Amino acid sequence: MDVRAAVAYEAGKPLVIETVQLEGPRAFEVLVEVRATGVCHTDEFTRSGADPEGLFPAILGHEGAGVVVDVGPGVTSVKKGDHVIPLYTPECRQCKSCLSRKTNLCTAIRATQGQGVMPDGSSRFSIGGRKIHHYMGCSTFANYTVLPEIAVAKIREDAPFDKVCYIGCGVTTGIGAVINTAKVEAGANVVVFGLGGIGLNVVQGARMVGADKIIGVDLNPAREPLARRFGMTHFVNPKEVGGDLVAHLVELTGGGADYSFECVGNTQLMRQALECCHRGWGMSVIVGVAGAGQEISTRPFQLVTGRVWKGTAFGGARGRTDVPKIVDWYMDGKIDIDSLITHTMPLDDINKAFDLMHSGESIRSVVTF
Amino acid sequence: MDVRAAVAYEAGKPLVIETVQLEGPRAFEVLVEVRATGVCHTDEFTRSGADPEGLFPAILGHEGAGVVVDVGPGVTSVKKGDHVIPLYTPECRQCKSCLSRKTNLCTAIRATQGQGVMPDGSSRFSIGGRKIHHYMGCSTFANYTVLPEIAVAKIREDAPFDKVCYIGCGVTTGIGAVINTAKVEAGANVVVFGLGGIGLNVVQGARMVGADKIIGVDLNPAREPLARRFGMTHFVNPKEVGGDLVAHLVELTGGGADYSFECVGNTQLMRQALECCHRGWGMSVIVGVAGAGQEISTRPFQLVTGRVWKGTAFGGARGRTDVPKIVDWYMDGKIDIDSLITHTMPLDDINKAFDLMHSGESIRSVVTF
Repeated sequence: MDVRAAVAYEAGKPLVIETVQLEGPRAFEVLVEVRATGVCHTDEFTRSGADPEGLFPAILGHEGAGVVVDVGPGVTSVKKGDHVIPLYTPECRQCKSCLSRKTNLCTAIRATQGQGVMPDGSSRFSIGGRKIHHYMGCSTFANYTVLPEIAVAKIREDAPFDKVCYIGCGVTTGIGAVINTAKVEAGANVVVFGLGGIGLNVVQGARMVGADKIIGVDLNPAREPLARRFGMTHFVNPKEVGGDLVAHLVELTGGGADYSFECVGNTQLMRQALECCHRGWGMSVIVGVAGAGQEISTRPFQLVTGRVWKGTAFGGARGRTDVPKIVDWYMDGKIDIDSLITHTMPLDDINKAFDLMHSGESIRSVVTF
Repeated sequence: MDVRAAVAYEAGKPLVIETVQLEGPRAFEVLVEVRATGVCHTDEFTRSGADPEGLFPAILGHEGAGVVVDVGPGVTSVKKGDHVIPLYTPECRQCKSCLSRKTNLCTAIRATQGQGVMPDGSSRFSIGGRKIHHYMGCSTFANYTVLPEIAVAKIREDAPFDKVCYIGCGVTTGIGAVINTAKVEAGANVVVFGLGGIGLNVVQGARMVGADKIIGVDLNPAREPLARRFGMTHFVNPKEVGGDLVAHLVELTGGGADYSFECVGNTQLMRQALECCHRGWGMSVIVGVAGAGQEISTRPFQLVTGRVWKGTAFGGARGRTDVPKIVDWYMDGKIDIDSLITHTMPLDDINKAFDLMHSGESIRSVVTF
């Protein structure tokens, strides 16, 4: 079938909106009509060429929501008409990782997903006979896409696509980092580095579980009012701290953070996030994605005296199990997504979403089909 | 009173055995007759001058066992005649750390202990009127020493001093790293870097909790037979691995270690210990003490994909609470200490203990008084 898509032909170039061909779903696959998709920093990481594993041409996008319109043989967990959120971290419930109950990093289709193809090794997208790669197993920058059955989360039908698409990545990553990875408890003190789309979701996750101090760290003072609305109790602009940022944060938290989150992808901030943690128990979670080849460092003494260094991917969420719950929390008013979606646009304007991201004007842009 | 002690007058010089003066216990302090003391790498770290915070002159030693012979005013938790193990990590049960239930790193007397003095700011040791520093709050290289009440663990009276002294540091550090810090569960796969006094206790801790594969990594093949006796199931000599050690360990563990322990103090090994852990959940615990100013590094991707980096001090054990239990485990035959104490000597020969440590001949030397 013909579908409308934004194609990334080459690293660093704008996406090209055009008609491409999409094959229907094969065994254990579903065809999803994408109704909305967020535009995330990870899409930009690949589009820009910074991602050393980026493949071109490709249809990017991994933060979508839509409706199942066809299913291949053997599909049993969803049916035509079901509303779904595509999952770049699938949940097969059968691999060693899924069965471990210790991680969300399902490995069922990891190898092929990384190669930009479906689990059978082939792509469903092409243009004029030329193969186009899938991206993160999702490719939501198209009005139709094909996904493995294990890579869609069935959600309630009254949830608005143009809001809950954000649960496909940013919302779940931020809130999940708090509740699944760090397991922040009521009364804890939390420091969040970076108040962008992920950091603000960490902030509201921390508020949801009853954290006391929620300290946001960002160079952009314009982020303060929104972050306060999401639950931030103290704002720290490193430019305005006279002296050492870590010492300032340790003092502000009365001895160090119980939990800190790095939501930028800067390895120096990752170190500061660890070192501002409380001696004896402070836990620092890396959420941001660092540039290729960059490394984190610290003195081992930081760990020997009780700090813990962790990371999170997709907020430690098992997609098919946890994403529908987060949709419920949104529908119940426990979390706010609407305020984070600052811009909405049609697919034809998708390159503007990247411009708004670079200028820092948007928290999240959503493309609606 | 006059006591016999090994005095460290100067960094890098042998200890000098002589008679020094010891004042009696003040309020909330106890006088302990030391019956036996282990000689640990940490003593050597300070004696050699490698410890940037080392103070001289000092009476080193922190791995002792003895009998309370006098108590100062206000002491209620122990009495004359009680058998005790001195604690370089005290347990006041009243500070923020003790009350947190998340750490063993009691802060009640941290500042003065680091300055080589008692909590009131003065030293009890002197020679000819010249002050001698306490060391790690213990100074067990003397036949009598004074300790704060919160820094002794009362133990059963039938436990032999020349064996259970080792519980004052090495045994508890190794076993505690397994049960308190990592919380290794039955069936787990464990990799231990370094099969010295700490590593062998990690090995037997892992066996005690029912680990499956217990893989020991050491350059010294002479360590293999003893480590097997303690529960090691596989021995890896990095010199004999053709190719990458991390890849070899990942293969040997069927995907990576569930838990790894660095028991050497080498920052490059700390990185390998982290990176040989299983994607999704593998946890690496730093037990060894690195040289001053050295740093650990890795790509943040290692953490984002689910590995956890931790450290441990005194095995996460709360001394007054946990040390008596470990003494029980030894007396019940659940753990072996005797095989680890390869050499015993009088105080006059204590410098030989350091020689044996350097030559790799000893696992642990114990001085008996």
